Amino acid sequence: MNTTVDVPRGLAGVVVTETEIGDVRGREGFYHYRQYSAVELAGSRGFEDVWHLMFRGTLPSAAERAAFAAETAPLRRLPAAVRDALPGLARATALSGPLAGLRTALSLLGASAGFRPVYDLDPGRRAADALAACAAVPTLLTALHRLGQGQEPVEPRDDLPYAANYLYMLTGGEPDPVRARAVEQYLISTIDHGFNASTFTARVIASTGADVAACLTGAVGALSGPLHGGAPSRALDTLDAIGTVERIEPWIRERVLAGDRIMGFGHPVYRTEDPRSRMLRDLALGFGGPLVDFAVEVERQVERILAELKPGRELHTNVEFYAGVVMELCGLPRAMFTPTFCAARVVGWSANVLEQAADSKIIRPAARYTGPLAPQPVPAAD
Amino acid sequence: MNTTVDVPRGLAGVVVTETEIGDVRGREGFYHYRQYSAVELAGSRGFEDVWHLMFRGTLPSAAERAAFAAETAPLRRLPAAVRDALPGLARATALSGPLAGLRTALSLLGASAGFRPVYDLDPGRRAADALAACAAVPTLLTALHRLGQGQEPVEPRDDLPYAANYLYMLTGGEPDPVRARAVEQYLISTIDHGFNASTFTARVIASTGADVAACLTGAVGALSGPLHGGAPSRALDTLDAIGTVERIEPWIRERVLAGDRIMGFGHPVYRTEDPRSRMLRDLALGFGGPLVDFAVEVERQVERILAELKPGRELHTNVEFYAGVVMELCGLPRAMFTPTFCAARVVGWSANVLEQAADSKIIRPAARYTGPLAPQPVPAAD
Repeated sequence: MNTTVDVPRGLAGVVVTETEIGDVRGREGFYHYRQYSAVELAGSRGFEDVWHLMFRGTLPSAAERAAFAAETAPLRRLPAAVRDALPGLARATALSGPLAGLRTALSLLGASAGFRPVYDLDPGRRAADALAACAAVPTLLTALHRLGQGQEPVEPRDDLPYAANYLYMLTGGEPDPVRARAVEQYLISTIDHGFNASTFTARVIASTGADVAACLTGAVGALSGPLHGGAPSRALDTLDAIGTVERIEPWIRERVLAGDRIMGFGHPVYRTEDPRSRMLRDLALGFGGPLVDFAVEVERQVERILAELKPGRELHTNVEFYAGVVMELCGLPRAMFTPTFCAARVVGWSANVLEQAADSKIIRPAARYTGPLAPQPVPAAD
Repeated sequence: MNTTVDVPRGLAGVVVTETEIGDVRGREGFYHYRQYSAVELAGSRGFEDVWHLMFRGTLPSAAERAAFAAETAPLRRLPAAVRDALPGLARATALSGPLAGLRTALSLLGASAGFRPVYDLDPGRRAADALAACAAVPTLLTALHRLGQGQEPVEPRDDLPYAANYLYMLTGGEPDPVRARAVEQYLISTIDHGFNASTFTARVIASTGADVAACLTGAVGALSGPLHGGAPSRALDTLDAIGTVERIEPWIRERVLAGDRIMGFGHPVYRTEDPRSRMLRDLALGFGGPLVDFAVEVERQVERILAELKPGRELHTNVEFYAGVVMELCGLPRAMFTPTFCAARVVGWSANVLEQAADSKIIRPAARYTGPLAPQPVPAAD
């Protein structure tokens, strides 16, 4: 027997790995990617710049930006075997939702491209596979969505940046620049956010030396769990359920007194306002309109009611609240809110996979057997 | 910031959860499923009995056995959407191997059956999904294999036990009872084996509340990693590479002196003979023949050479060595050795998923950011 080490339940606070990718500083209300404030990056850079930062370690020069775009844009096109399989896959996953579809499509893409054969560890090949997977996710997501609606998928365009091309493939129309930029800012702000359960899952699988698709497939699976948190459509559904300004106060009081969580409020790490929420509110205010006015009023009243009913808890809007509002304003269908999150987070997962794969140590903890100790003889079958 | 806890690298020896499913006692050369010696179970019980033990907590009575068989046999048939998608999936995964195929097919099965929608935690539904996934894995594996060989899949038969039906679907012929029983014993002995990386992966995903297919898809991905260990075909390839009795000594010495691992020897936990190896050797000796004689001679010489060149290391055959021999004797193609392992381990993964899902605590450790600390202002793009 190995010596065992006792730790807090659920490994809370247990340092399982070192990372240079980024960090969340909950008390400061700050998170960063390789030292750069993620919110600042979202404010002044394009998605490809930040993707380059996550994968290659630096913000690109103009020449590097052009080379990176030229390298990644062609990877948006799917291998024929995957494209041919998508209609069947869309039919099969029609009832189970887009995350199960993405999980399957990513697994298929990885298998089709013959992502790194087992027993062959090659960092260059793994990095190329990760690049291909990230580039293909918007194509997979939008194709599955359109097929599910009875529409033909829209082929990716090489001349558009990542976010604009995503909107283009989703709608088939020329993307509005203001909306494309808002989606891009949302995507940049969501690429990574500390060591959540899906990122951890990706790294555990990566630690076995498995291929990139195996890691990302597992990460999408973990993200789909309700305890992982995060579904921007729920916060928007709450706004709909409240309906009018005069109903805010009684609706919220009733829910809080019943012990329900108010979707879009509270975060396990932040003790201040979620910096993503602040950024997304500013984006929403830039659009303006009745939905934004209503959201701001709900935020104001909910914070007041929560401060009264749950004093000292510091409950503020989290990323879900204004993310839903911004995506609605950008014309994204609600079923695509969480998939859109995936189109960004896949870059963060992949950066974590590449970092973990450079470490040859498998992540393999222990379980404590707590059943009866004495071995039982197997009785004869009756 | 949360307080952080330092632990050994790779979480070695860190107790992440409690389990009543089973345990490996490395020093004693013993492992068990719910107190019953797994090897003893393999010697006297059928696969369904042990599956029932893993899922329901007890060995079944005669009536329970009949009911369990009647419940699981119909689940071997695939939903139409999955069956229809398999040819395309087999084509797409032709180059990437059967684990990538299984990963994708399991994900698809889970999506098609509409396994537990997100945000709906229902233990009964989850247990039913797990039963369906385990029952379907042999059908998925054999269909993908046959399609890859240009053959039609063989529909499952309800009247055969799990292992015999697996051989039947693989070959299309009436399974030989001796071979079917040998495969069944191998499968039983492989259902579970402590807290390895794939089992851990399944439990991490389960801890988010994700559906069963998400958990199993991640587990297959982790299993496909070379550091997870385990590919019985490699041990058999080694026997082929050695070729003849007189080449054993020079071949092995050369490899050991070059620092290579000898496939089929050594285990991270057992300091004695691997109890699975002992059982599988006995099974192989029951078949007899030149391959078995050669394997026994290789084992004898390798143990002698390893004891001489690596004294004190206690290197013995592991499960891979005789598993490969037994599967070869049972007529399984080498490409199906690891998939056959999956057809058993999926029951162990699922039992772990069901146990983990009963715990509402997410498994979410921490990472330590080790990059430069001072935030950097984002430079203007050039």
